[in-house]
Amino acid sequence: MVAKGKSDMTRRVFLGLAMLILCGGAAKSPLARNEIRFPDLPGYVTLKCDFHMHTVFSDGSVWPTVRVDEAWREGLDAIAISDHVEHHLHKADVVENLNRPQEIAAGRAVERNILLIRGGEITPATPPGHHNAIFLKDVNALVADDFYTQVDQAALQNAFIFWNHPGWQGAERGKWGEAQDRLLKEKKLHGVEVCNGAMYYVDAHRYALEHDLTIVGNTDMHDPSPYWDRTPEDHRTMTLVFAKDRSIEAIREALQAGRTLAWCGNLLVGKEPHLQAMFDACVEVSRVQAGGKAGVRAQVKNLSELDIELLRPGADLSDARKKRMATILLPAGMTTMVVLPVPAGKTGSVEIPFKAMNFLAGPDEPLMVNLAITVPAAAPATAPAAK
Amino acid sequence: MVAKGKSDMTRRVFLGLAMLILCGGAAKSPLARNEIRFPDLPGYVTLKCDFHMHTVFSDGSVWPTVRVDEAWREGLDAIAISDHVEHHLHKADVVENLNRPQEIAAGRAVERNILLIRGGEITPATPPGHHNAIFLKDVNALVADDFYTQVDQAALQNAFIFWNHPGWQGAERGKWGEAQDRLLKEKKLHGVEVCNGAMYYVDAHRYALEHDLTIVGNTDMHDPSPYWDRTPEDHRTMTLVFAKDRSIEAIREALQAGRTLAWCGNLLVGKEPHLQAMFDACVEVSRVQAGGKAGVRAQVKNLSELDIELLRPGADLSDARKKRMATILLPAGMTTMVVLPVPAGKTGSVEIPFKAMNFLAGPDEPLMVNLAITVPAAAPATAPAAK
Amino acid sequence: MVAKGKSDMTRRVFLGLAMLILCGGAAKSPLARNEIRFPDLPGYVTLKCDFHMHTVFSDGSVWPTVRVDEAWREGLDAIAISDHVEHHLHKADVVENLNRPQEIAAGRAVERNILLIRGGEITPATPPGHHNAIFLKDVNALVADDFYTQVDQAALQNAFIFWNHPGWQGAERGKWGEAQDRLLKEKKLHGVEVCNGAMYYVDAHRYALEHDLTIVGNTDMHDPSPYWDRTPEDHRTMTLVFAKDRSIEAIREALQAGRTLAWCGNLLVGKEPHLQAMFDACVEVSRVQAGGKAGVRAQVKNLSELDIELLRPGADLSDARKKRMATILLPAGMTTMVVLPVPAGKTGSVEIPFKAMNFLAGPDEPLMVNLAITVPAAAPATAPAAK
Amino acid sequence: MVAKGKSDMTRRVFLGLAMLILCGGAAKSPLARNEIRFPDLPGYVTLKCDFHMHTVFSDGSVWPTVRVDEAWREGLDAIAISDHVEHHLHKADVVENLNRPQEIAAGRAVERNILLIRGGEITPATPPGHHNAIFLKDVNALVADDFYTQVDQAALQNAFIFWNHPGWQGAERGKWGEAQDRLLKEKKLHGVEVCNGAMYYVDAHRYALEHDLTIVGNTDMHDPSPYWDRTPEDHRTMTLVFAKDRSIEAIREALQAGRTLAWCGNLLVGKEPHLQAMFDACVEVSRVQAGGKAGVRAQVKNLSELDIELLRPGADLSDARKKRMATILLPAGMTTMVVLPVPAGKTGSVEIPFKAMNFLAGPDEPLMVNLAITVPAAAPATAPAAK
Repeated sequence: MVAKGKSDMTRRVFLGLAMLILCGGAAKSPLARNEIRFPDLPGYVTLKCDFHMHTVFSDGSVWPTVRVDEAWREGLDAIAISDHVEHHLHKADVVENLNRPQEIAAGRAVERNILLIRGGEITPATPPGHHNAIFLKDVNALVADDFYTQVDQAALQNAFIFWNHPGWQGAERGKWGEAQDRLLKEKKLHGVEVCNGAMYYVDAHRYALEHDLTIVGNTDMHDPSPYWDRTPEDHRTMTLVFAKDRSIEAIREALQAGRTLAWCGNLLVGKEPHLQAMFDACVEVSRVQAGGKAGVRAQVKNLSELDIELLRPGADLSDARKKRMATILLPAGMTTMVVLPVPAGKTGSVEIPFKAMNFLAGPDEPLMVNLAITVPAAAPATAPAAK
Repeated sequence: MVAKGKSDMTRRVFLGLAMLILCGGAAKSPLARNEIRFPDLPGYVTLKCDFHMHTVFSDGSVWPTVRVDEAWREGLDAIAISDHVEHHLHKADVVENLNRPQEIAAGRAVERNILLIRGGEITPATPPGHHNAIFLKDVNALVADDFYTQVDQAALQNAFIFWNHPGWQGAERGKWGEAQDRLLKEKKLHGVEVCNGAMYYVDAHRYALEHDLTIVGNTDMHDPSPYWDRTPEDHRTMTLVFAKDRSIEAIREALQAGRTLAWCGNLLVGKEPHLQAMFDACVEVSRVQAGGKAGVRAQVKNLSELDIELLRPGADLSDARKKRMATILLPAGMTTMVVLPVPAGKTGSVEIPFKAMNFLAGPDEPLMVNLAITVPAAAPATAPAAK
Repeated sequence: MVAKGKSDMTRRVFLGLAMLILCGGAAKSPLARNEIRFPDLPGYVTLKCDFHMHTVFSDGSVWPTVRVDEAWREGLDAIAISDHVEHHLHKADVVENLNRPQEIAAGRAVERNILLIRGGEITPATPPGHHNAIFLKDVNALVADDFYTQVDQAALQNAFIFWNHPGWQGAERGKWGEAQDRLLKEKKLHGVEVCNGAMYYVDAHRYALEHDLTIVGNTDMHDPSPYWDRTPEDHRTMTLVFAKDRSIEAIREALQAGRTLAWCGNLLVGKEPHLQAMFDACVEVSRVQAGGKAGVRAQVKNLSELDIELLRPGADLSDARKKRMATILLPAGMTTMVVLPVPAGKTGSVEIPFKAMNFLAGPDEPLMVNLAITVPAAAPATAPAAK
Repeated sequence: MVAKGKSDMTRRVFLGLAMLILCGGAAKSPLARNEIRFPDLPGYVTLKCDFHMHTVFSDGSVWPTVRVDEAWREGLDAIAISDHVEHHLHKADVVENLNRPQEIAAGRAVERNILLIRGGEITPATPPGHHNAIFLKDVNALVADDFYTQVDQAALQNAFIFWNHPGWQGAERGKWGEAQDRLLKEKKLHGVEVCNGAMYYVDAHRYALEHDLTIVGNTDMHDPSPYWDRTPEDHRTMTLVFAKDRSIEAIREALQAGRTLAWCGNLLVGKEPHLQAMFDACVEVSRVQAGGKAGVRAQVKNLSELDIELLRPGADLSDARKKRMATILLPAGMTTMVVLPVPAGKTGSVEIPFKAMNFLAGPDEPLMVNLAITVPAAAPATAPAAK
């Protein structure tokens, strides 16, 4: 990287050893962590969590430590390994002990500063469908022939229990049924996986709102994590948990209180108050210019990982061109120059309503938001910036 | 993006209109700006500047507004358009008026919030080589047959004058010569382009230190900017200016005071105090764990755009394996798990010296830095993180 | 790149000068060309063409040579520069001469082996909308106050004339009207731009089929080309022309004969025979395995730049899961392992019908295709591959 | 993807289901295979092979089927799983049986059309260092206390035996020693791993040439494969085997005959005849233009995965600018416009010698190549391409 002698007057920038080891991009260093940009909410830290994944101890294809390595690299704060309680694909070769994944990965989790939660997946036929129990003390105790016995054992251990991927075997089989009624009544059903991998389950979102269940989104990974590109579309599905601090106990409290959002593809899915708080924390308007005939020019910064799409309510969407005119796009992490619809001549405080199309407060229900700006009086727009 | 009806139980995440318009990646939206991560220094804002580029008004191939659009998109704060004073390749088709580029681009610069500086490139034979004069009032006034007359005219307009790309026509022709001596003596040479495009001019770095010239790095773009990947290697070469505020006058003051660094490829090039301040602002150590036989494990966050390479001073580098053992790599923008060389058993405050291989304080002279940490007493490293 | 001495036993792979100059990826070298993978059709070469773009000689922002450089880099065979005949945004600074762009760029086109076609855009109000005339001899001769006079002049020069971007000012204003009727009747309307930039004009597709117009797709670029990522979604919109050889005259003949497809985003848009021939040239089935209960496993290679989506005709699409089960995806340029729906026990020749969802033969009309395979008799599927 | 009705005049290109499932790039579909572009050599197919990798059955972290999935996705033809014979990190949880990895993965290998070779790594202290034995029938038979006993058992099974990563524990410990002498004499050492992961072992290259050992390059992966970017720098290290057909027996024959190259980073490492044949198959010169003062312009296509760097022999390399002038760069898979050094006025057949800097025929020994061209007589270079 440094010169050999004075004769080397010009030199192309040298890559040096650093680039060699990082060959393939920094994101691929096994020791480097790509932090996820979602701001904290007032009073809470935003923890990035995945509560559903498998290892060779059921039907997954990786050793438990791999799940910790992936979590570090991909910017997670907490994971739950949740191997199937009744289904061990590799039992001819791997011991049957559902506590082993967490025991094996624990040391690595301490090193990597990942909060590691002990879990298991109760896997009966559908219906009633699969359910995850997390914060368990002894997963082996859940081995039983009867679904309700299994759930009771999980409840005895004070687990947080959620219904996994409703609808993955079709809408009909994934309908809310008597098992869900019973568990809910007995306070043994606490959440529902509205997003699983690349899937968003619309009906599950509705169930969460109707029955006040906590919304979670997880990967359900069986194979190695695919080194996501970390674009708004290509990332690990996860649950954003708004916790009082960064600890396993705080995650449990937040899950019980329902303070979560699921992040899946370019969507945030959840309940209205958390979506609203997150939107407010993510979007910053600055440098509002004086208005013109077309509206008011401003800079809008998007502090999130979503490409946010704002649509004017009531806009005519009868052709694509009109939809485009009524839409403001805010790419993830960037500052965008936008034109806001303010009547010519208007100055001072203005609130401009939009639908945030990828903040889903319910099925078919984008979040209603307001951009609040202060429009200055006109100044000559074409004055030279420099003399 | 939202459901059609209740029958649509499962749904893959929909991309929606947002992604269509952003097709090809958010960085390609002409209205979206990719901010450059270099922290401010104590007392100064870090402005990202490029003081050397061309348009169709000399031998470039773009209209002046393109230079503003590029600057916005690529996260710059300020640019100087600096067409050749004596060399107009397109004069059969484009008027000869060196003030036009800045006049044409001024309105767009106001809209995009780019500080637009009026400049020109004095382009005699080499030696004495090319020189940029920026903060001009009337570039046309520099048209003259004699190099010194041109420089005098620029000085009359109170321009900041720097020597461009020494060595681009070979080391011999780019040597410090009598013209540089004369300009320096007359206080008409204020800076030198140590980096130009992908080139780092080693001898120019030495001249800057020997003669106390301000270090600048610029693109010298003639063609459209190539939509950089924005990796540590593939970005726009630029000058980081440490200014009292975000204004053209503050940039002038900072250039005169020499408060700059050049960023070129994976290198920061400059003078020791600014490199030291930048390093301190970029590197954060956290979560130091108790030591073991191999050393102390810690998290190190790199807040810059460089992949920072730290090398133990005095390390045995006789083979690549040994060099790798002595090296710590901190990918840009990421948090890296590192093992720091602390003797087993040592606790409390420790300072660990390194050479920052891509912070160049001079030819062959990486910056000397210290990582200061506090090592806690040992705790059982393999304790389970969760119960 | 090579060793210093014998003591350097191990060595990390060195990047060498090559990577430095290619810094940012090979696709960014101004001299390197990224060939576009669409196979030739029987009897024809597939030429990649863009017949609509602007320069500083009307309202574009680049010098004409830039258009040739872009064409080379992006794998095109032919371009037409088509500045507005009546609209010169920069006339205060740039001469008014509509033949200049082609004259200026001609030398570069010879060097880069790009077929450069002289064109102009006739730009009246909408309706009747804008029309491109290409293969002109003197664009200046088209300057006139009356639209029909302009078209007549183009026809006199034996130009190929097509209607640009119908619908860009809304569906209503872009409707087929009396001007189109008149031009068609006079044989002065030969084609229609079904795709323009990222837009696919559905009604224009219908007009092309109803009136037997040649289908073209172009960029209509005004600004520098944005260094596309060259994914199926992020590429230059273009016309695939099936020509008898690689020459300007052969392009003219193929346009007159209507042998084209438009490639826009992940869509090929055109007429049924050309889509069918292209599909057959793009998709290769190999290594069909013996059937099982789920169907027959085979490898399918996609030789095109599209991510091809095949859908079983008549499939139940009432939820996303069912749609996914009925879909086969063939990523661009890759070989995909697929399971084809063949009844268990069936062997020998089988034809399996699909809808090629992104080969559009008309509005709402995906191309019907057949995959022809030969199913072998069963062999033990789990036999070890190695001894 | 298809229109809703006639009112939808304009429409942005729709991404459709295809893109959703392929979200994150086609290369991430677990069923899609990214073929590796290295041409076949006359008389041989070029098979892409990796003969060294681990699973949970020794100290790896993946289930054996993962190795087959990776091989399919990454374009390999053949792999050998080679778990450590004496070192089973997970034996508390996973059975001790070194034939299991191959047995478990065999069915998947048949499905995916991957040639799966049974192997094992003999892992004594260094020296003598680790050795891989492949084409084994029973890996368990190699369990023994003595290195030579182990090798004898491998030889009894007619294995191909190669020395792994000489020098990975330092140059001194990786020196050719008495064990290598003995094995060579007894014809039980057939190859040497010149490249392992990102490392190129210079001395190992020398040993291969001195003792006529077959050159191999492998990953030695323990963790999941990191979804390479598939750039010339970021790819899976592998052995190119020039085999008579695509079968395990043909691979064995080619290894015994020494017909291989190792591909590591942007380097091909091997013996002169195979490098020469590969270079000739990779580089195609076309469209040579008439010469000018600067030389002769031509198009050069690079059919390989390397960014090929050609350097004029005897060039003055005393500064970076001169080196750049003497260098021709051919990005992988692209066609590059180059200027070849031919004296002005010379026409007809010309051979131009170069050093192919990343085709290494020995330590410090780039391959000598000739570009053969035919220079046409001059034609007017600036004639317009179109009328």
